Amino acid sequence: MLVLSVLKAAIQPVDAALEPALRVLLDGKAKPPGSLGRLEDLAVRIGLIQNRLDPRIGRTDLFVFAGDHGLTNEGVSAYPASVTAAMVGLFLSGRSSVSALAKATGVQVRVVDAGVDADLPAHPDLIAAKVRRGSRNAAREPALTPDEVLTALVKGADIARAAAADGADVIALGEMGIGNTSSAALIMHRLAPAPLDACVGQGTGHGAEGMARKRTGIARAAQRSDATEPLDVLAQFGGCEIAMMAGAVLGAASMRRVVLVDGFISTAAALAAVRLAPAALDYCVFAHGSAERGHPAMLQALGARPLLDLDLRLGEGTGAALAAPLLGAAANLLTDVAALADVLAGPG
Amino acid sequence: MLVLSVLKAAIQPVDAALEPALRVLLDGKAKPPGSLGRLEDLAVRIGLIQNRLDPRIGRTDLFVFAGDHGLTNEGVSAYPASVTAAMVGLFLSGRSSVSALAKATGVQVRVVDAGVDADLPAHPDLIAAKVRRGSRNAAREPALTPDEVLTALVKGADIARAAAADGADVIALGEMGIGNTSSAALIMHRLAPAPLDACVGQGTGHGAEGMARKRTGIARAAQRSDATEPLDVLAQFGGCEIAMMAGAVLGAASMRRVVLVDGFISTAAALAAVRLAPAALDYCVFAHGSAERGHPAMLQALGARPLLDLDLRLGEGTGAALAAPLLGAAANLLTDVAALADVLAGPG
Repeated sequence: MLVLSVLKAAIQPVDAALEPALRVLLDGKAKPPGSLGRLEDLAVRIGLIQNRLDPRIGRTDLFVFAGDHGLTNEGVSAYPASVTAAMVGLFLSGRSSVSALAKATGVQVRVVDAGVDADLPAHPDLIAAKVRRGSRNAAREPALTPDEVLTALVKGADIARAAAADGADVIALGEMGIGNTSSAALIMHRLAPAPLDACVGQGTGHGAEGMARKRTGIARAAQRSDATEPLDVLAQFGGCEIAMMAGAVLGAASMRRVVLVDGFISTAAALAAVRLAPAALDYCVFAHGSAERGHPAMLQALGARPLLDLDLRLGEGTGAALAAPLLGAAANLLTDVAALADVLAGPG
Repeated sequence: MLVLSVLKAAIQPVDAALEPALRVLLDGKAKPPGSLGRLEDLAVRIGLIQNRLDPRIGRTDLFVFAGDHGLTNEGVSAYPASVTAAMVGLFLSGRSSVSALAKATGVQVRVVDAGVDADLPAHPDLIAAKVRRGSRNAAREPALTPDEVLTALVKGADIARAAAADGADVIALGEMGIGNTSSAALIMHRLAPAPLDACVGQGTGHGAEGMARKRTGIARAAQRSDATEPLDVLAQFGGCEIAMMAGAVLGAASMRRVVLVDGFISTAAALAAVRLAPAALDYCVFAHGSAERGHPAMLQALGARPLLDLDLRLGEGTGAALAAPLLGAAANLLTDVAALADVLAGPG
């Protein structure tokens, strides 16, 4: 707990007093005031996070946190749990969806073994941070122990802080874990909070029978524990990769880095982080509005509006990879565009 | 007219028979079918345009077509016409909004003098293609002669074809021209078609008095001519840069290149091109939904849904610069992502 307290104390809210200066700077650029709409809001957000009038986004590091879920024993997913480990192999081979998109947008992808239920061979782009081989079945018992939650949070924070120290301007979150929309739905239910029904969606795809199984398994877990405190919620409903992503949010925020949040599951992790340390929200940028049912309400609970709306529902960090160039563009707006006054003054 | 006929004849509709194969390929990728939403539709569009199952987007060339408008004599703009030439200087200095955004997204920007009412000094990134020093005042007389329209179309087509021959995979359209939302509104009115009121918006900004002047000037032009045929509409309501952008759409389509259309004015140019050669629509991707009032209805008239929705209303190609990375990402999806069958078969 000491480490977590130190980490939380290191997260300062952004200095809102800088916002008027950032707005004045943008309004003085050689373009009609406000004509770049939400990109201007994003520029202000980045200026506040970096605490400067001339922000710059050079490097975005995307981490795909992978973990398995005991809850899959209840049949909540259309895919077998073994797919998680297979997908890790695919990420590392560079032939996954997120790899393909990140290549196009100049984002560096690494995979974090947060809790895959398999022994994964070493790879230069794989960070070994396994908390345990899959979470326990949350429908029957707490998915993680309190110690495991803390371990996951601290490892996530360390990963983000190391990337920041190494020069990453943006820490982007992605994930892979068969069954993790169920874990995220339970976290949303307790931490948004929101009615359970509003939190459960199709995930990566289900027929009517599969959806019934998913609802039953999730309802069983919700009935087993009435946790509402964020550390307890993470322990009860788990997800090694979700807890570790929450830690990464805290770690990135403690280093004043932009956190680029992907879709439904990443947002659940950000929600947990924000409930642990409310100031962390200042550092979060939400990449896209997912087609997963609960995402709009979860974003609303965070007061967030995402950048993209492309009906994505894959996860992996695909939305974050697609949104990443917008951050660099927004920063350039503040830093590289001439003032209108200079243009009117002419070349001299 | 002969050149235009040859150009139009060179534009073939995409081969829709390829679409099922592209969909099957995407559905067989190592991800749940449809889970990348509209990015999958974009991948299919690019596959159809390039007429291959393994499309690739390497280079995006953005052209900012600049021109002045005699209609500004009616007080339709909040800015003096001299701003157009000043902005060309800013684009060339690399300190404009579109320059800053394009730098972040890896897009190459060049400026086209389509009809600026000033002598512009030579610059390596400036393409001298002036049709005339500003269009005539459309409220009083036709903005362009039929010959000037043809000249603009052919020059635009040549610029796009040269870029394509030089290796550009995407021709992105941007523009700068004080008064050109008025010209675009008139073109939309006649070619969408749509009620004039629904076509007139704030442009780069106006108070109530300015909007009244803008409405009056536009209404006067609309009353002067009842043109509905696309070449005549371009002549009556003009815009050297709009006609030249329409030509660029035709030129790019004739070379089977993706046309990335920016906002309201670029879409009016695409609309004119599509009315001249309907198959050109197959090659158009619409970058963003502008905050300019008429844009949603104009997109609807084209059956188009834009990629981004960021409340932009600047023009210059800023939305196209922001959307450009999505095209490369979508193409990579088809070309670089492994088939699910290969993943399930395992490494070996």
